[in-house]
Amino acid sequence: MAKLQRIKVVDVMATPSLVSQEINVKGWVRSRRGNKNVSFIALNDGSTINNLQIVVDLSVFSEETLKPVTTGACISVIGQLVESQGKGQTVELIAKEVEVYGTADPDVYPLQKKGHSLEYLREIAHLRPRTNTFGAVFRIRHNMAIAIHQFFHERGFFYFHTPIVTASDCEGAGQMFQVTTMNLYDLKKDESGSIDYSNDFFGKQASLTVSGQLEGELAAMALGSIYTFGPTFRAENSNTPRHLAEFWMIEPEVAFNEIEENMQLAEDFIKYCIQWALDNCQDDLNFLASMYDKELLERLNFVIGNEFVRLPYTQGIEILEAAVAKGRKFEFPIFWGADLASEHERYLVEEHFKKPVILTDYPKEIKSFYMKQNDDGKTVRAMDVLFPKIGEIIGGSQREESYEKLTRRAQEMGVPEKDIWWYLDTRRFGTAPHSGFGLGFERLLLFVTGMTNIRDVIPFPRTPKNAEF
Amino acid sequence: MAKLQRIKVVDVMATPSLVSQEINVKGWVRSRRGNKNVSFIALNDGSTINNLQIVVDLSVFSEETLKPVTTGACISVIGQLVESQGKGQTVELIAKEVEVYGTADPDVYPLQKKGHSLEYLREIAHLRPRTNTFGAVFRIRHNMAIAIHQFFHERGFFYFHTPIVTASDCEGAGQMFQVTTMNLYDLKKDESGSIDYSNDFFGKQASLTVSGQLEGELAAMALGSIYTFGPTFRAENSNTPRHLAEFWMIEPEVAFNEIEENMQLAEDFIKYCIQWALDNCQDDLNFLASMYDKELLERLNFVIGNEFVRLPYTQGIEILEAAVAKGRKFEFPIFWGADLASEHERYLVEEHFKKPVILTDYPKEIKSFYMKQNDDGKTVRAMDVLFPKIGEIIGGSQREESYEKLTRRAQEMGVPEKDIWWYLDTRRFGTAPHSGFGLGFERLLLFVTGMTNIRDVIPFPRTPKNAEF
Repeated sequence: MAKLQRIKVVDVMATPSLVSQEINVKGWVRSRRGNKNVSFIALNDGSTINNLQIVVDLSVFSEETLKPVTTGACISVIGQLVESQGKGQTVELIAKEVEVYGTADPDVYPLQKKGHSLEYLREIAHLRPRTNTFGAVFRIRHNMAIAIHQFFHERGFFYFHTPIVTASDCEGAGQMFQVTTMNLYDLKKDESGSIDYSNDFFGKQASLTVSGQLEGELAAMALGSIYTFGPTFRAENSNTPRHLAEFWMIEPEVAFNEIEENMQLAEDFIKYCIQWALDNCQDDLNFLASMYDKELLERLNFVIGNEFVRLPYTQGIEILEAAVAKGRKFEFPIFWGADLASEHERYLVEEHFKKPVILTDYPKEIKSFYMKQNDDGKTVRAMDVLFPKIGEIIGGSQREESYEKLTRRAQEMGVPEKDIWWYLDTRRFGTAPHSGFGLGFERLLLFVTGMTNIRDVIPFPRTPKNAEF
Repeated sequence: MAKLQRIKVVDVMATPSLVSQEINVKGWVRSRRGNKNVSFIALNDGSTINNLQIVVDLSVFSEETLKPVTTGACISVIGQLVESQGKGQTVELIAKEVEVYGTADPDVYPLQKKGHSLEYLREIAHLRPRTNTFGAVFRIRHNMAIAIHQFFHERGFFYFHTPIVTASDCEGAGQMFQVTTMNLYDLKKDESGSIDYSNDFFGKQASLTVSGQLEGELAAMALGSIYTFGPTFRAENSNTPRHLAEFWMIEPEVAFNEIEENMQLAEDFIKYCIQWALDNCQDDLNFLASMYDKELLERLNFVIGNEFVRLPYTQGIEILEAAVAKGRKFEFPIFWGADLASEHERYLVEEHFKKPVILTDYPKEIKSFYMKQNDDGKTVRAMDVLFPKIGEIIGGSQREESYEKLTRRAQEMGVPEKDIWWYLDTRRFGTAPHSGFGLGFERLLLFVTGMTNIRDVIPFPRTPKNAEF
């Protein structure tokens, strides 16, 4: 076959000047149909959800030649690009040469043309990126990652890699994965019967991080504005459509930002990402909307088009109590001090305000030790961004900058000072007001793609009893 | 203090129209000097390596007021920006109001004005981003990450998150970290005495990934062009300036690329990153060059300015043997089949060609099972990109696309088929030529920053016996 530079399908479709040119495309066969005169191959190369139609004249190619060209086969085609006669596409390729790179035996290839359930596709996660649904989801996933880096880079934030393996356990025990190189068949113990970690790789007990925030704060107190974007881990035995043992988090942290600026940053940030999706992922979004969620685009535009309500938790509780008094039923009880459930968050967003809501100033008992304490002695300067359909999408706070208050609160909440002496040092030396928040990347993707199971927005989900591929 | 929007120092210096305006800056005191009439504060806010000079008129501010303004303290200053009278800066700020956010007791603050050794700074990795050196390194690190995403995004690659926790062990045993939630004091065993992993979190033995390549190939065979950028782990007990237990890798993988296109991609990619550094990190590079490595910029320009030599391994060996014959001494022996040492790689680059070199077609015995086998039966279509000073910076290959050849080679090299059935499936169904490579992010940073210890280019290095912070 003559050496002609291969062109991606997305570029073929975006370049009108290619019409009537001879071009080379390569990709995977999604389907082949036709009659005894002509065969139509739908070719997809992953660059776009759209297939390029290949027209094969059966007076030129024998049916025998086309026999291996079945769903899933990989082919290279040289031909002339022409304006399409049929409907559903603007251009098509009149095949001149067809080379088969790899066949896909129809008797065993798991992805035939017919639709498969998402559950089934999860079992063949190594092949599911070849489907329309997962091609769309993963192209959107890429775009959201790029939007995130772009947003922060444009604003002078520095991307900061916090460690994955850590010897600190600041969120409390029991939910972390242990990391070790010890021979589990020959564990050394000291006189008291405790495992001797001095010979473990890191010389002490080590785990996978649950959050990069504390290290991110160190960086913010030096570089000013930073963000993390990396994997985090929770060993919760939760087999639900909302939990993953391994997921990616984005955690910006900004020196000198108080909670108002933190709220504005969160609102600007999430709107930027969603606008990016609307601008850059139109075909994929339209496909997902048509297949899974008719209200997807409406919901994305709802977020873009509304200013987020800012509301103290206490007022949120009053609104919910008033609703209950008027007969609104909730599964979980409402009272000051309660951790809001998704149904409460969604009531505020979807029914009461009809706008995204940022709830602030939560009771200190239900929030972390590092949040800035308000003067009322009861609440902390936390903020949760609440969205339609999914409830909380972002959680953050202004951080406690006072060494004394932070140390006292850590003690009260049982966080050992020996584990966070380095964190406390930022308050001992040149402390300043600062704020940040965390966004679960897959939570964002659920919202943007309209998918309902978090296992379907990450390539290889890790959940209890599952670490395949 | 009046509420005036704070401006970052980098923006102050880049905005001439601010001169004569009243502005607010916030940051950390690097030093304070002066006489009885005036005090000069060097203020750094992490946005740039350059300090803004704050001029404090001691007829307006008492020496007492300024007492807490010591090295490391965090302050907010309002004042008038003026063109500087002194040398070393273009603008300075005449202080009108000074607020101290946080002090830094000179008796205990570890980062006094005087220079500290890199070894000492490693022990206080939580504070070292506040130094000029690590501020520069981490701003460059950010810029290299952005350049990488930008390069691939512009070219239609999709960022793909491969899993961190994996149940496969494809690079051979012994170098991986085990991940577990089992109670090590109460390990369950089956009748044969083997540990019963059915109750471990993932239901089987799990580890931290050493590479995302195999999963990346799955994605490339669906989406076309992808890249990974994530943490990888090696449990090697190597305490050297070149080894980390946790480091970040970039691994592009491209369907339909053969080795020639793979080489071109690698050359374009690394030149793009280095050009980005030269364009966007000038001040930080100049600082690092002046402090640590006078030839840094020359070396960066050497890479940009030269076409990379493409050379088969066999010819490389011949050149090295000829050098030995002429009396050139190497520590390690040279013969066909040898794995090249850094001294050999550097000889080819720095002395023989005086250009970066891409060495290809290595003996199959010293390369991985997945590399495409050449017809000679002895070599594989591997490629290593060799750089001055550091030797190999990129390693990659065309991948073996034949199911039969790949399966046979995996068997020969002892890779159990049960661990890679999903990988082999890409060759069973719609296989195609494809290629990719891996770049160790910290290896790139060593080259770009001129730092010589890999612990100094990652915020929190993880090495044997060390997982602090």
